[in-house]
Order: sequence, then C-alpha cells, then structure tokens
Amino acid sequence: MSGAARDRGRDAAEAALAAGDERAVRMALSWVFDAGDPRVTDALRDEPPSRVWADTLAGRHGPGAQRRADVYQPDGLAVLARRSATRFVMPGDDEWPEQLTGLADGEPIQDRGGCPVGLWVRGQGNLAEWTHRAVGVVGARACSPYGQECATDLAAGVTEEGWTVVSGGAYGIDIAAHRGALAVAEGRTIAVMACGPDIEYPRGNLLVLQRLADQHLVVSEVPPGVRPTRVRFLSRNRVIAALGAGTVMVEAAARSGARNTMAWTEALGRVAMAVPGSVHSALSVGPLQLIKDRRAELVTGPGQVLELLSPIGSNMTLDPRGPQTRLDSLAREVAAVYEALPARGYRTAGEVSLATGQSVRDCLAALGALELEGLAEPVDGGWRAHVRVG
Amino acid sequence: MSGAARDRGRDAAEAALAAGDERAVRMALSWVFDAGDPRVTDALRDEPPSRVWADTLAGRHGPGAQRRADVYQPDGLAVLARRSATRFVMPGDDEWPEQLTGLADGEPIQDRGGCPVGLWVRGQGNLAEWTHRAVGVVGARACSPYGQECATDLAAGVTEEGWTVVSGGAYGIDIAAHRGALAVAEGRTIAVMACGPDIEYPRGNLLVLQRLADQHLVVSEVPPGVRPTRVRFLSRNRVIAALGAGTVMVEAAARSGARNTMAWTEALGRVAMAVPGSVHSALSVGPLQLIKDRRAELVTGPGQVLELLSPIGSNMTLDPRGPQTRLDSLAREVAAVYEALPARGYRTAGEVSLATGQSVRDCLAALGALELEGLAEPVDGGWRAHVRVG
Repeated sequence: MSGAARDRGRDAAEAALAAGDERAVRMALSWVFDAGDPRVTDALRDEPPSRVWADTLAGRHGPGAQRRADVYQPDGLAVLARRSATRFVMPGDDEWPEQLTGLADGEPIQDRGGCPVGLWVRGQGNLAEWTHRAVGVVGARACSPYGQECATDLAAGVTEEGWTVVSGGAYGIDIAAHRGALAVAEGRTIAVMACGPDIEYPRGNLLVLQRLADQHLVVSEVPPGVRPTRVRFLSRNRVIAALGAGTVMVEAAARSGARNTMAWTEALGRVAMAVPGSVHSALSVGPLQLIKDRRAELVTGPGQVLELLSPIGSNMTLDPRGPQTRLDSLAREVAAVYEALPARGYRTAGEVSLATGQSVRDCLAALGALELEGLAEPVDGGWRAHVRVG
Repeated sequence: MSGAARDRGRDAAEAALAAGDERAVRMALSWVFDAGDPRVTDALRDEPPSRVWADTLAGRHGPGAQRRADVYQPDGLAVLARRSATRFVMPGDDEWPEQLTGLADGEPIQDRGGCPVGLWVRGQGNLAEWTHRAVGVVGARACSPYGQECATDLAAGVTEEGWTVVSGGAYGIDIAAHRGALAVAEGRTIAVMACGPDIEYPRGNLLVLQRLADQHLVVSEVPPGVRPTRVRFLSRNRVIAALGAGTVMVEAAARSGARNTMAWTEALGRVAMAVPGSVHSALSVGPLQLIKDRRAELVTGPGQVLELLSPIGSNMTLDPRGPQTRLDSLAREVAAVYEALPARGYRTAGEVSLATGQSVRDCLAALGALELEGLAEPVDGGWRAHVRVG
C-alpha cells in the first residue's frame, strides 16, 4: 500500500467514526473496552452506539476508557484486520448469531457479561449459519488420554450429524474437540479465542488454528493484535456457552476455567452436559461434581448429547378430559412444561427446554413436580404427559 | 446324639408344629415355600402363621406346597441348623430387623416380594443392631480392578464411621465390599445369601464366608441345606435393599442382577446410589444409566454415601412471616418436604427423605419444585428453606 493510500484509509476510517457510523463506532468500542466489560455492554443495551462512544470520549465511562478512546487509531486496527483477513461482525449483520443477543439480559459472572460489542471473525464459514446447530465442548488443558479420546469421539459424533463444534482452541480437551470435528468430512468447528483472532495462541496449536482460520471459523470479542488475559478468558467462556445449544464438560479439575463456561451455560438456559469418568481421577472431579449437583446432564457419548439437544418433533395430543383443574393450580412455569409434553411418544428435557424457553434444570424440576402430581411420566429417553383413561 | 435323643428331638419338633407354635410354623413355611413366594408372604400379612400352615396342609396354597408340607421333617431341618450354628430369627424377636416389616406392603418385583417368613442367621452379630445403620454394596461378579478398588474403599470408609456393609457374598464387587469392611478393626459386615446360610457359595469365597459366619453375620431367607436358584437371588436382592438405609451400585453391566437390587432400593424408598466410571467400560453402563435417569445419586466415595444417609440434625427455624399462603397451595408431599427444611444450615436430600418418609427421588423432585416457587434454595451440600427478608 502506498503512503497516499494509507492516508486515504486513515482519513476514511476517522471520518466514519466521527460521523457515528455504527460499524466504525462498535469497532472502536471493541478496542477501547476490554471484552465483556459491563460498562460498555450495559450502555449498549440501553443506548445507541454513537451515544456510548460520545460518552466514552467525554469520560462518562471512566478515565481509563477515555484515555484509550483518545489514542484509538481506527486505521491501525483496520490494517491488522486486513492482514489477517479478519472481518468485524456486529448485531444486525447477516452473519450475526442472534443467540448472542440474549446475553444482554443476563447478570455478569465474575464481572464479565452482556452482549458482545461485536465479534472479530476469520474463516470461510458463515457464523450465524454455522451456529444454528452448535455445541460447545470444554475441559482441562492438561487432560488425560481418556479425556482426549472422549472429546475427539464426542466432537466427531456430533459433527457427523451436522452439528458444529465450538471450543476455545486451547491445549487438551479444546484441541481434541476441534480435531475430532476436523476428522469428519464437511465437519464444522469454531474456535472462540481470548486473544485477537489473528494470534495463534497457544503456539503449540498453530497448525490446527491456522487450518481453522482458513477453512473453518476463528472468532473473538477481542480485536486483532490483542493478547489473552484472565478476564478475556472469562469473557470468552460466555461466548462459547452462548453460541451453542449446549456445552459438554469432558474433563476438568475441581478448579477449572471450564466451570465458568458451564456456569454461563446454565445461566443462559442452555443444556449443560458432562462426561463422567473414574472417581480416582482428579480430572473427573469437575464433571462428576456438576452431575452430582444436577447442574449438568450425564452424557456418555454423542448420541446422548444430540438426544438432549435435538428438537425432534412429537405430536401434542393431550386428552381433552385431562386434569385441567389440577393444572390450573400449578405455577406458570410448571404449566408451560406440562403444555410442552406430548401424550404419545415423548420429549427429552432438552426439547422441553427449547419449547418453553426455560433452562433444562428448571424443566427437570418441573417434570419432577408434574410426576409427583401424576401429570407426567418418565419414559425411556424422555417424558410424556400422563393421560388418564376413562 | 443317641438314637433315643434323636427320637425325642423329632417328637418335640413335631409336637411344636402340631401345636401351632409360631417359630416351628414359620420354620416349616420357610422350608415349604420358596424365598419371597408371594403366596406365603401375602398370606402371612393377613393371617396368623398357624392358619397359613393349616391352609397349606389343606392344599389351599397349591398342590406343590401341600406335597412339600406333607413331607416336611422338622427335626431334619433342626439338625442341619444346629450343625451349622444357624438360628431362626422371626418378626417379634429381639434380633428381627424391623425395617423388613415394610416389605409386606410393597408390590412384588419379578414375582418375588413381601416380608420374609423369617431369616436363617449365622454369626456373632445381633442382626437388628447391626442393621440399625447399614448400607448395601452391590455390583458385577466379573468386575474390573477399578470396581474392586471402589467397592473396597467405599466399604472400608463407611465401616470406619460405624456403618455395617451388607452384600451378597458373591465374586467381584460383593466380596470386595465384604473384604473392605473386614479390613477395618471392629468393622461389621453381613452377607445375605441366596442359598442356606450353611452353604459357602461360591466356593471360591469359602474362607471369607467362613469368617463372616464365625465373626460377622451370614443371613438367608432360605433354610440350611438349600441350594441357590435364580428366584432365590431375586428374592435375596430385596432383603439386601431392605436391610440398609441405602444401596450403592459400584459396577454393573447393562443387564445385571444388581439392577434388581437397585429397583428394590428405589421401590422401598431407600437411597439408591451409584459410582460412576469410564464411559468406555461396559461395567459402568449400569451405574451411569441409573445416574443419568436420576434413579440413583452419584457418589464418588464413602463421604458422599454417608452424607446422603446420615440424619445429621439441623435446627428448623422457619421465618414466621414465611410464605404460608403459597405453601398451602402445594401438594401435601411437597409441603412435607418444605416443612423438613431448616432455614439456617441445611439438610441433604437423604436427610429430608428420612424426615419425611418419602423417597430421595421424590424429595429431589419436590425440592426442585420448591426452588421454582422460591421456597427452597440449594446450598453447598444440601437445601434450606428460603427465608424472605422484610
């Protein structure tokens, strides 16, 4: 690029920002604020981006943000993005995954939260399309051969059924999951990074990450050129949880970043799942604790993951003589679950969750309550409404 | 014994039976009917033993039972019992475990059920006292080293806390559990057999079974001299489940006799527990399926077993301004669970189960419903009533 062209690029980028162009503004906010900073995500929920940008310049979101806004160079970021073939995807774009929008309504976890300002994306996939049916796979970096095998098998299995595997590009479970998806022809996998999507971190995963950036998708809230930090990992975890219909924890020690991803999965009403393992393995403590506490569904393989996630249709043919009076006395949430149950065939808790918009955990609690009331019954693989005879 | 003494013994035993002596009659019924035969257990629920015996002799419980009653030799059975130092324990005896009485009210499973006619007992322990705090440990005969280790550790751990380990004396998980209890000084363990307690079956466990019969307890519904059969195993399983406050499945294939024991555990409202394992092991299919289906609580070691079983006291100090009106609208069972929750500290689901007499599964469903209603909240390790402020 000639010096003159560079100057023209800088002028155009600065003019767009000055004019309050939404894309230019969101790119700026994405660079000025750290990923998932509630100051910016809260502000964007209530006000237009140009107003948030003006407030930032005016110091209304703190002196640190103001200082960074003052030194922001839109053309510098544009060059980094262009070099790594990174695009900026934001709400309203065709490629924007609508499921991220719900993040705006949640409470922060560990001081990170809200709908991302935008996502920096590398790769050939269409992010919205690829996350229409997606599942997160997370776990320990220092995993065991058992965990590696579970993650690979699980990822390959769901990929074969047309699902996209979302993970974090890290050592251990993450990369095993990505590899499992890559092993399937036409498989799709997405790495959600805690650094700029142009940075292949960790370096040991360089070749896989390059392949993902080329033929699949590498995604980040963090702009090109920015290194990973602890808060960026925490923020990244909510994006993994939010992109998928559910997240599976494969192996994780008692204190593991993957627990944070599972907390987000639960908070967002997605299906939290965990793969059990030996009670003698420190790496099974995380999944076993989640299962024990009923914060995750036990899954042993891809079939059970898909069973929980797939909205397989079943006919709702409730008996008209059904127990309407007892139903009337149920809490609204429980009644909604009852309404979502078929009288013939069955629905899994995951399908009921999708149908009602309630979390799987709440649905299971409601199903238990309905069973106590004689209004629902568990069948092999799911639940159905209990239909009285006569 | 001289011939004259033998004759006197025979005459006395026959006279007692003829006179309708309850012990003599129940011993006879125990020999005439197979273990857990609903014909005799149902009859004994409704009628005095002497009447059931008279009806049996009269052919009112079928021609097979009548034929066996005709050829019954009380003195022959007495000789076998005496030789093996076997005593007959029946309802009303000091040593009778009262928890077996509840079996009379349940439905048969696989055509076996009801309260045992009596138990044939060998060993130094007092059966009622030893089963005051007892837990069953069951699983595969052809277990893996992993299962063996889990069973031994679990049995040793609960034994150290003063609990009695109940199992079936079989190869694999059973004998590993017995050995785990035997390894603890003052440990107590009970083998419930599917054959007469005088028969050391299987022969490979001879030395352990002899030690149990000598210093611990070997118990059976089946009289001395009688061999094990499939129905006797099924019948035996309900006694294991009924003697303990809960039963742990350690390892079991998809189709395993241990599933029957767990079905009894659940049917009797005891705490069903299961130890998870590798998703690649066929021997983990049984426990993982039970956990997945929420028919068993996941336990990783003795501490978690005791947490579910121990009725640790916690004060019930409900806020008098509590949500009485919402409580009134709850089902009676759910309200009972709410009443059992403390406002400070917590109770485990196991403790709530013991306090309410409902199964742990029902309690967990109720707790989930209460949580949805904002009336209960999960805390680390258990549940407490949710107390409103103001």
